[in-house]
Amino acid sequence: MRPTAMASGTLLNRLMAVRHASEALIEPLDTEDLNLQGMADASPPKWHLAHTTWFFETFVLRPYQPDYEPADARWSYLFNSYYEAVGPRQPRPQRGLLSRPPMREVSAWRSRVNAALERLLESSGDAPWLELVELGLQHEQQHQELMLMDLLDGFSRQPLEPAYRADWREPASNGSDDHNTSWLACPGGLVEVGHAGSSFHFDNETPRHRVWLDPFQIADRLVTNGDYLQFIHAGGYQRPEFWMSEGWAECCQRGWQAPRYWRGDRAGEGPWRWEFTLGGRCPLAEHRPVRHLSWFEADAYARWAGARLPSEAEWELASRTFGEQLLQSHGELWQWTSSPYRPYPGFQAASGAVGEYNGKFMTSQFVLRGSSQLTPRGHSRDTYRNFFPPASRWMAAGLRLAR
Amino acid sequence: MRPTAMASGTLLNRLMAVRHASEALIEPLDTEDLNLQGMADASPPKWHLAHTTWFFETFVLRPYQPDYEPADARWSYLFNSYYEAVGPRQPRPQRGLLSRPPMREVSAWRSRVNAALERLLESSGDAPWLELVELGLQHEQQHQELMLMDLLDGFSRQPLEPAYRADWREPASNGSDDHNTSWLACPGGLVEVGHAGSSFHFDNETPRHRVWLDPFQIADRLVTNGDYLQFIHAGGYQRPEFWMSEGWAECCQRGWQAPRYWRGDRAGEGPWRWEFTLGGRCPLAEHRPVRHLSWFEADAYARWAGARLPSEAEWELASRTFGEQLLQSHGELWQWTSSPYRPYPGFQAASGAVGEYNGKFMTSQFVLRGSSQLTPRGHSRDTYRNFFPPASRWMAAGLRLAR
Amino acid sequence: MRPTAMASGTLLNRLMAVRHASEALIEPLDTEDLNLQGMADASPPKWHLAHTTWFFETFVLRPYQPDYEPADARWSYLFNSYYEAVGPRQPRPQRGLLSRPPMREVSAWRSRVNAALERLLESSGDAPWLELVELGLQHEQQHQELMLMDLLDGFSRQPLEPAYRADWREPASNGSDDHNTSWLACPGGLVEVGHAGSSFHFDNETPRHRVWLDPFQIADRLVTNGDYLQFIHAGGYQRPEFWMSEGWAECCQRGWQAPRYWRGDRAGEGPWRWEFTLGGRCPLAEHRPVRHLSWFEADAYARWAGARLPSEAEWELASRTFGEQLLQSHGELWQWTSSPYRPYPGFQAASGAVGEYNGKFMTSQFVLRGSSQLTPRGHSRDTYRNFFPPASRWMAAGLRLAR
Amino acid sequence: MRPTAMASGTLLNRLMAVRHASEALIEPLDTEDLNLQGMADASPPKWHLAHTTWFFETFVLRPYQPDYEPADARWSYLFNSYYEAVGPRQPRPQRGLLSRPPMREVSAWRSRVNAALERLLESSGDAPWLELVELGLQHEQQHQELMLMDLLDGFSRQPLEPAYRADWREPASNGSDDHNTSWLACPGGLVEVGHAGSSFHFDNETPRHRVWLDPFQIADRLVTNGDYLQFIHAGGYQRPEFWMSEGWAECCQRGWQAPRYWRGDRAGEGPWRWEFTLGGRCPLAEHRPVRHLSWFEADAYARWAGARLPSEAEWELASRTFGEQLLQSHGELWQWTSSPYRPYPGFQAASGAVGEYNGKFMTSQFVLRGSSQLTPRGHSRDTYRNFFPPASRWMAAGLRLAR
Repeated sequence: MRPTAMASGTLLNRLMAVRHASEALIEPLDTEDLNLQGMADASPPKWHLAHTTWFFETFVLRPYQPDYEPADARWSYLFNSYYEAVGPRQPRPQRGLLSRPPMREVSAWRSRVNAALERLLESSGDAPWLELVELGLQHEQQHQELMLMDLLDGFSRQPLEPAYRADWREPASNGSDDHNTSWLACPGGLVEVGHAGSSFHFDNETPRHRVWLDPFQIADRLVTNGDYLQFIHAGGYQRPEFWMSEGWAECCQRGWQAPRYWRGDRAGEGPWRWEFTLGGRCPLAEHRPVRHLSWFEADAYARWAGARLPSEAEWELASRTFGEQLLQSHGELWQWTSSPYRPYPGFQAASGAVGEYNGKFMTSQFVLRGSSQLTPRGHSRDTYRNFFPPASRWMAAGLRLAR
Repeated sequence: MRPTAMASGTLLNRLMAVRHASEALIEPLDTEDLNLQGMADASPPKWHLAHTTWFFETFVLRPYQPDYEPADARWSYLFNSYYEAVGPRQPRPQRGLLSRPPMREVSAWRSRVNAALERLLESSGDAPWLELVELGLQHEQQHQELMLMDLLDGFSRQPLEPAYRADWREPASNGSDDHNTSWLACPGGLVEVGHAGSSFHFDNETPRHRVWLDPFQIADRLVTNGDYLQFIHAGGYQRPEFWMSEGWAECCQRGWQAPRYWRGDRAGEGPWRWEFTLGGRCPLAEHRPVRHLSWFEADAYARWAGARLPSEAEWELASRTFGEQLLQSHGELWQWTSSPYRPYPGFQAASGAVGEYNGKFMTSQFVLRGSSQLTPRGHSRDTYRNFFPPASRWMAAGLRLAR
Repeated sequence: MRPTAMASGTLLNRLMAVRHASEALIEPLDTEDLNLQGMADASPPKWHLAHTTWFFETFVLRPYQPDYEPADARWSYLFNSYYEAVGPRQPRPQRGLLSRPPMREVSAWRSRVNAALERLLESSGDAPWLELVELGLQHEQQHQELMLMDLLDGFSRQPLEPAYRADWREPASNGSDDHNTSWLACPGGLVEVGHAGSSFHFDNETPRHRVWLDPFQIADRLVTNGDYLQFIHAGGYQRPEFWMSEGWAECCQRGWQAPRYWRGDRAGEGPWRWEFTLGGRCPLAEHRPVRHLSWFEADAYARWAGARLPSEAEWELASRTFGEQLLQSHGELWQWTSSPYRPYPGFQAASGAVGEYNGKFMTSQFVLRGSSQLTPRGHSRDTYRNFFPPASRWMAAGLRLAR
Repeated sequence: MRPTAMASGTLLNRLMAVRHASEALIEPLDTEDLNLQGMADASPPKWHLAHTTWFFETFVLRPYQPDYEPADARWSYLFNSYYEAVGPRQPRPQRGLLSRPPMREVSAWRSRVNAALERLLESSGDAPWLELVELGLQHEQQHQELMLMDLLDGFSRQPLEPAYRADWREPASNGSDDHNTSWLACPGGLVEVGHAGSSFHFDNETPRHRVWLDPFQIADRLVTNGDYLQFIHAGGYQRPEFWMSEGWAECCQRGWQAPRYWRGDRAGEGPWRWEFTLGGRCPLAEHRPVRHLSWFEADAYARWAGARLPSEAEWELASRTFGEQLLQSHGELWQWTSSPYRPYPGFQAASGAVGEYNGKFMTSQFVLRGSSQLTPRGHSRDTYRNFFPPASRWMAAGLRLAR
C-alpha cells in the first residue's frame, strides 16, 4: 500500500480518469437497473458508485480536509461496506432496498467529493494522504470490475435476459485459436514471491519472501469450453470421486450441471449451446476459455484431467519467468490456484481502519491470480492476490492446469 | 362475481378511470422506487402495474378479442401472480429483480391493452366477458391499495425514511376526537350474512346464508394509539398469558415491541413517539386508531382489555344494523375479526382459472372487515371479506372490540 | 373440566389403572427406544412418562399435598411441556437429548408420585383437587395415544423398520367389509352442540351453544385406502386445482406422493403396496380406512370426489343423531373436519396455569372428531375436540365425506 | 498408510486390544446414552462401535475373506460414514434416530467380525490386506477419541450435567505449574517435513517434502485458562479488530463469550468459574491449558497477545528439534496451527474407496498438531495432521503461540 512518490498532479489526472470511468459504466443502464441486486454477495450499481465515494470521504477528506462538509451522517451507514472500525452499516443483502438516495443525489455527492479531492491534491504535492488517495483510486478500479460482475449476475436472473450493452464484444483471446496446450517446465527451487519495490500494491502482496518449489510444469494456456465439455460428457458432475467432499455437497445441493452462465434450450439443462454474457445470450464458443466456475469445479476438472491447479507461488514464478510464453496470464480471466488465501510470513495489515481492507478475510477463501477482461487497464500485476470462497462462481474466473 | 348488467359505456368510463388512477399512483415516485420490494410478501410498483394489465390480457383479451396480439410470452411468466392454471411464474420473492422490462415498456403495454379493451367494450353492450372486465377493474382497485401498503413497507426499511408524498395528509377520522367508547348492543338471533343481489361482489362473499348469533355488544369505534399504549405499559409484550401460543412464539422470535411502524428515538425501542407513514416520520397521535398490528396483537390486546374480537358475522350485522352509529366502519382501517377465513356453506369458486382468485386461500388466515383510508372509493361494502395471515402487519389494519 | 362428583376410591382405582397402563406401553420397547424422538413435533417415550408425572406433581401435589417433596428442581425444566406460567423448559426439539435422568429414576419418581396421590385421595373424598386429579388422568390418557403416534413416527424413520410389537394386530373395522358408502341425510336447523352436564370434559368443549346448520348429507363410513388410490391414480398429487394454495405448497416442498406411511418397493415411490404400522411393514389393505394424511390431503381428496369435509357441528350432530348408523365414528380414526379450531362463543379457559391446556392453541389448526384405535378405552365422546395443524400427518387421522 | 511388515500375530494382539478398548469405553454409560447425538457433527456411541466394525467388514472381510457372511445389507447403509464409492448412507444428522439395531446386536456383530479377522490374520503372515487391517486399527483408535468428544458434547447439552465417569481425573499436565512461558528460537531454513520411513502413517502425512521457513520463535507451553481470562477481560469477545471477519460473524451469531465448556453461575454468562468435563462440572483451573476453543478464537487470542499461531511446518520442526523442551506437545491438547489443511506437494490419495479417508476433506479446515489426553496411547506422532473447520469447538483443542 505504499504508492510511489508521484507528482500529485499526475495522481489527480489518473484519479479523475478513474472516477469518470466509473460513471461511464452506468451509462448503458436503465435507471431501474441502478438498484438491481441479484444476490446477497452482489451489490447494485448505484451502491458501488456511492461506496467508492464514501471511501474517499471517510479515509481522505474527513481526516485531512478540515473544511470538507460530509454527507448526511446516515449515508455513512448506508455505504460503509465492512469497516467495523467506522461503525455499523446497512446489511449487505439489503443494499438493493436502497431506492433512496436517488442516483442524482449520489452523482452530486460524487462531484462534490471530486472537487474536494481536487482541492486537496492541488494543495500539496507531498502529503501523508497521498497513499490513501492512491488506495482509493485502486479501490475504485476494483469496484469497476465488481460492478460488471454483479450486473452480469443480476441480468442473468431475469427471464428477459437483458444485455448490459447490445454491442458488447469480447476481445480476442491471445492463445485460444490453437487448442493444443503446451506444458512449460519450471525447475522451481528456492524462489522469492510477493511484491518488491515501492510501486503501488496491496498490503496482502507483502512481504516478499522465500518459498521452496519442487520442479513443476504449467499449461501455457487456459482450459477451454471445449475441454470442459469433455469433462461434462464424462459425467464430471455425477462422479463424486473427482470432487472435494465439500464441493460435492455444494454441487448436489445447488444442482450444478455446468458453469454458472451456460445455457441450454431449457432451463438448467443441456445440451449446452449458449452462454449468458454482458452482451446477452451468445453461442458457446468451444475455443474460448471456460469461465464462471467455482474452485470446486476447477479442482474437480483438474483431477479428472490427471493434473492439478498451480499454487499461487508457482503461478507467480511462471508468469515472471515465461513472460509472453504464458498465454492469457493477464486480461483474460482470473485463474484459480490451489492456495488458500492466508497471510504471507511476516504480514502486517495496514494501520488504521484501512487495515480491514484485506487482512481480515484470510480464511476459507482461495487465491486467484492474473486478471480478467473486466479488470481496468493498469490494475494488474503478477503479485496481485485476488480471493473468493471456493463455491463462488459469479466472478470472471477460469483455470490453468499444472502438474 | 356477477356484475350488474350495465351499459358497457359506463363500464368503460369507470374502467379507464381506474386504469389511470393506478398510473397516477406512481407519479410521486422516483424511477428507482419502481422495483422496490421490501419483503417476499410485497411487490414492486411496476410489478403491480404490469400484473393488473396481465390480468386483462389473460382473462379478457386472449379469450375474447381474437385479433389482440399478446405481449412477449415471457411476460406472462413474469406477471402471473399465482394462477396455476395459467402456468409457471416468477417466484414471488424475486419480483424485485425484474429491472426489465423497464417501466416505459410496461406503460406502452398498458396503453395497448387499454385500447384493446376499449375496442372490445365498444363492440358489444351485452357479452359474457363483461363480468370479467368488471372483475379486472375490481382487481386493479385491490392492487392500488396493495401498492401503497407495499411502498410503505419498502420505504420503512430505508434508513433515509423517505416519504411517498411529502404532502401526504391523513384524512380526519370520524369518531376519534372523543375517546369514550360506547358499546352498541345487538340481540343477535338467526340472521343472514353474505352478499345478496346482483351488484358486484367477489365469489367468497356468497352464498348468503343463515347464522345463529348470541346477543353481543360491539364498540362504536376503533381502539386508539392511546389505548394501545396502555397495553404496552402494562407489559403486554412481555406477558404470555394474553397471547395465543403461536402468537407468543412470533412475538418472541421477531422481537415485537409495538405496532409495525411505531418508532422511538432509537431503533426498535420505546418510548414510542413517532409513526412511520406514507408522509414519512410523523408524531404518534394518541387519539388516532392504532394500526399495522397483527391479528395476534389485536387478539392479545382484546384479552388484556377483558373483551374479544367480533366475529365476521357480528361485524357484518352490526354494520348493517347500526349504520352511522358504528363509527369508522369504512374508510379508516381494516378490522381484524375472530373468524378464520373459510368458505361460506355452499360456496362455489368461480369457474375457470379465475376460480383461483379467492377460493384457494381459505386456510390459515383471518378475515378483516371494513376498508381503509387506502381503499379506493367505491371499493367497499359490508359483506366484503379481506383476509391475511395472523402474523401479517403491513396492511392498514386495526381493531374494534366486542364482548 | 368439571368431573362428576365421585367416590375418591373409584377415582383412585381408575387413576392407578391409567398410570399402570402407561408403564405397560413401554414394555415391548428396547431401552434404547426410550429416548427416540423422530421429529420436533414428537416426544420420546420416557419423556411422556416423566411429563405426565410432572403434571400431577405440579398441579396436584405441590399445591395440595404440603408434605410432598418434589423432584430435583431441574426436572421441572426438563418435563414442563408448554406451561409459561410454570416457567422455562427444555426446548421441544431437544427432548430426545435427555438421556438423563435414566428411565429407572423416572420410574422411581412415578412410584413416589403414585404413592403421594394415593395418600391424597385417601385423605378426603370431596376436595377441590379432585377435578385436577381427573384432569391429570385424562391428560395421561392423551399421552398414551401420543406415545404410540410418536413411536410410529420414530420407528418409521429407521431403515430397519422395527415393529413396536411383532404381534400387533389391527382390530377389525366396523363397516369396512362393504365398500358401498351410504349417505345419511340430516335436516340440520338450529341445533345445540358442545358438552352439557357435569361429566368430565375439557374446557374447549364448552359452552354448549346453538348453531344453524343447513341440511346436509354425511357418509356412513370413512374413505378407504382403495378409494384414495383412485385419487392418486387420477393424478391427485400432481393437480393443484384440488388443493388449497398453502397445501399445494406443502405438497410440492415435502414431495408428498401418498399418505405418510404408505410404502412402495422403492423409497418414496409407488406402486404403493405396503403400509408401515406399529406391527412393522404390512400389506396395504384396500378396504381399510385411509389414514395418516394431512388436512390438506383430506380436503383435496374431498374436492376431487365432488364432496367436502363435514363441519365439526355437522359431525357432532350426525354422531348424536344416527348412533350406530354412523359407522367408524369412534375407535377407528380421528376424522378431519372443515372447522378451524377456535373457541366456542362464550368460551372461558380454565383458571390458573391449566388454562394453558387448550385455550392458547386456537389458531392455525383444524378440529378432528371421533377417536382412534390408539385412543384409550373410555377416552372418547361426541363432543371431544381434537386439533392439529393442517400439514400434520403423524396422528391416526382419516376422513369422512359430507355434501 | 504403509504399515511396517510385522508378524501378523503381533498385529492380531494389538488389534484385539484396540477392539476391546472401544468396548470398554461404553461401560460407564447408561444404555440410554448409547444413541445420544448432541449435534449433527457428533455421532452416538453405538454408532461409533458399529461404524468401526463396518470398516473392517467392508474393506477387509468382504474383499479378502470369501466365506465371511456380511451383516444385513441395510447395515451398510446405516454405518457407512462418508464413503461415496461404497454407496448411500444414513444422513449424518440422523444417526441418533437409530435406536435399532440395539447394542446387543451390534456387540454380537463386533464379536463375529473379530472372529473373522482372527481367522484371517492367522491364515497368513504376509498379505495385501495387512495394511488395511492396520488402517482399520488406527481408524478405530481415532473413533475412540471421537466417541469421548461426542459424549462430552452430548452430556454438555443436558441440564442435569451428567458425568461420563464420576471418578474422571485429568492427568497432570507437564509444564502447567509454572506460568512463565519461554520462547524457543528456531533458525528455520530449508527443512523437510512429512512422514518418512515405513512405519504406519496416514496418506495425508506424505510425501515428505522441503519447505522454507524463516527464523521463528515458539512458546514452550500452551496458553492457559488464566491467560485466556485476560483476553476475555480485555474485551476480546467484543472487539472485532482481533478477529478474522468470518470468525467475528460466527462469534456474533453464536453468541460466543468464552470457550465452549466454560460455565458461570448463570447460563451463558460469566464470571467463569466452572468448566464442564467428562467428570461433570469442575472448578476452572487457571494454570491448565485452555481448551475447546475454535480456530477463530485461538487466532484472535494470538493477535491480541501480539503473537500468532505457528504454521504446521514450524510446529513439526519445533517438536522434532526441541524434544522434551517443547512441553505439552503430545498427550495434552491438539494445537491449532495457522495452516489450512491442504495436500502436500505430490500428494496421492490411497487407492480405492479408502482414498476417501483423508483426501477429500482438504478444503475449509485448519490443521491441528500434537495429540490430546483423549488420544489413545501410541496413536500420536510429530507428522500427524488432524483437521477441523475453524468454527469447531468440541474437540480437545488448545493453542500454542509463535512469533
